[in-house]
Order: sequence, then C-alpha cells, then structure tokens
Amino acid sequence: MSSVGFQLDPRLAADTLPVVRLDLCDVLLMNDSRFAWLVLVPQRAGLVEIADLTPSERTLLWHEVDRAGAALRAVVPCDKLNLGALGNIVRQLHVHVVARREGDVAWPGPVWGSGPAEPYGERGREALPDRLREALSR
Amino acid sequence: MSSVGFQLDPRLAADTLPVVRLDLCDVLLMNDSRFAWLVLVPQRAGLVEIADLTPSERTLLWHEVDRAGAALRAVVPCDKLNLGALGNIVRQLHVHVVARREGDVAWPGPVWGSGPAEPYGERGREALPDRLREALSR
Repeated sequence: MSSVGFQLDPRLAADTLPVVRLDLCDVLLMNDSRFAWLVLVPQRAGLVEIADLTPSERTLLWHEVDRAGAALRAVVPCDKLNLGALGNIVRQLHVHVVARREGDVAWPGPVWGSGPAEPYGERGREALPDRLREALSR
Repeated sequence: MSSVGFQLDPRLAADTLPVVRLDLCDVLLMNDSRFAWLVLVPQRAGLVEIADLTPSERTLLWHEVDRAGAALRAVVPCDKLNLGALGNIVRQLHVHVVARREGDVAWPGPVWGSGPAEPYGERGREALPDRLREALSR
C-alpha cells in the first residue's frame, strides 16, 4: 500500500522508539519505562479518525492491533491490555496498546495523563524493541 | 448469535442508560451529562480481552464501534472521537466511544478518571438515548 506524503507527527517521533513497520502501521514503543506501551500509526497522510481509513484498511488496523497485543503478552508480564485511540493532543491517527500490571503507577486509571514519562536506560531502549520486533515477526 | 449465560456487569448497568441492542453488542449511554459517552458490551459470557472474541465477532465489534461513532457525530457536537477498551476496574469486555469537545471538563485528557459523573436530568435521560437509538437504526 502507498504511504505517499505520510510523515510521522514530530511529537510521536520524539516520545517513542521505533519497533517495526507492518503492512499498514508503524509500530512504536513509548519511551516510558513505567509501562510496556505500543503506539500503532497507520502510514497514511491526513488521517485523524478511524473512520478516515477505508474498510479494508480498518480491518488491517485491528488485525495489527491484535498482533501488537499478542506480542506484548508474549514478551512482558500483563494483567490487562488497554487499548485507546484518543488524539486529543496529537491529531495524527494512532492507536495505543498497553500492557497493564495490577499495581503499576497508574493502576487502575488510564496511562494517558499519568505523569511524566521515565525514559528507558541505554540497555532497555534496545532490548525491549528487539524482543517486540521478534515477537511481531512470528 | 447466542448470548447464553451473558449478564451485564452490575457496575456497568448502574452507571449507564440502555440505548439499543445491536447484533453483537448492547449499546449503553454513560449516565454522565458531561460527555456524550457510549459503551458497547458484546453479549457473550466470560469475555475479558478483544482477543477472546472469534475473528468474525471482532469484525462485527469494530463495525458496531464505527456505527456508534457515526451516531454520536450525527447527534451531538464532536471535535474528536475517543475510543478505549481498558477493563482495569470492570473486567467484562466493553468498548468506550466518546464524543469529545475541545474545552470539555476533561479536555485534552481522557474521560476515564476525570471525576464524578453528573447524571442526566429527567428529560436528558430519555432524549439522548432516543436520538442515539434512532441514529443507530438508520
């Protein structure tokens, strides 16, 4: 599929580490070691709402979201997956998939608005993307 | 489709007003006049994660979520749709579809954890479900 004219929102780029590019979405890891938190960004210019995708792209988006959730479950401890598409601050369409632990710093509230990110250290910023990339390639 | 053994979680029942039953989901309106906020609950017993649905049920879920978003847009002012499937407190699988306004009381944060609900008055608790039911029946 074509991704002509697509450019990742600079705030998303600044807040994340790249994991892998799937058929529709760029998969990014939020650079916040408090949560194992993926962000999927469809590689299409000008999207804001899910409804801006074609029906076949929507099917692909939810399939890739399922894959992202399965990869998180395979790689980190997870008591509950959280899914969200908000876009109140960054309008470029993106979907959050977060592995939540009972007792994590935001539990049982949402991760959004839960205070400042704690960036990964030098080892973590390579190790977790590597493991997620491998899990997503299976 | 069968919904044998399904019972709506009592907290979801207490916090919402019924709107309509679609093929897969019960559509409920959060009884919180601060936001136009729908909750879709697949009528299947024992579901927690999206991945607990069959592939065809998942397709139907996202189709009904799309319909819910379109109904909200048709009936209330909306600057951005917010979608979420959290389940950290109520584990029964449910998907939130919320019409957000720039400047609403939680903007630009999420609606979850945004303070106590303000229940609809006597007129609102019938009028909005009626209009949403009509929009969802089109």
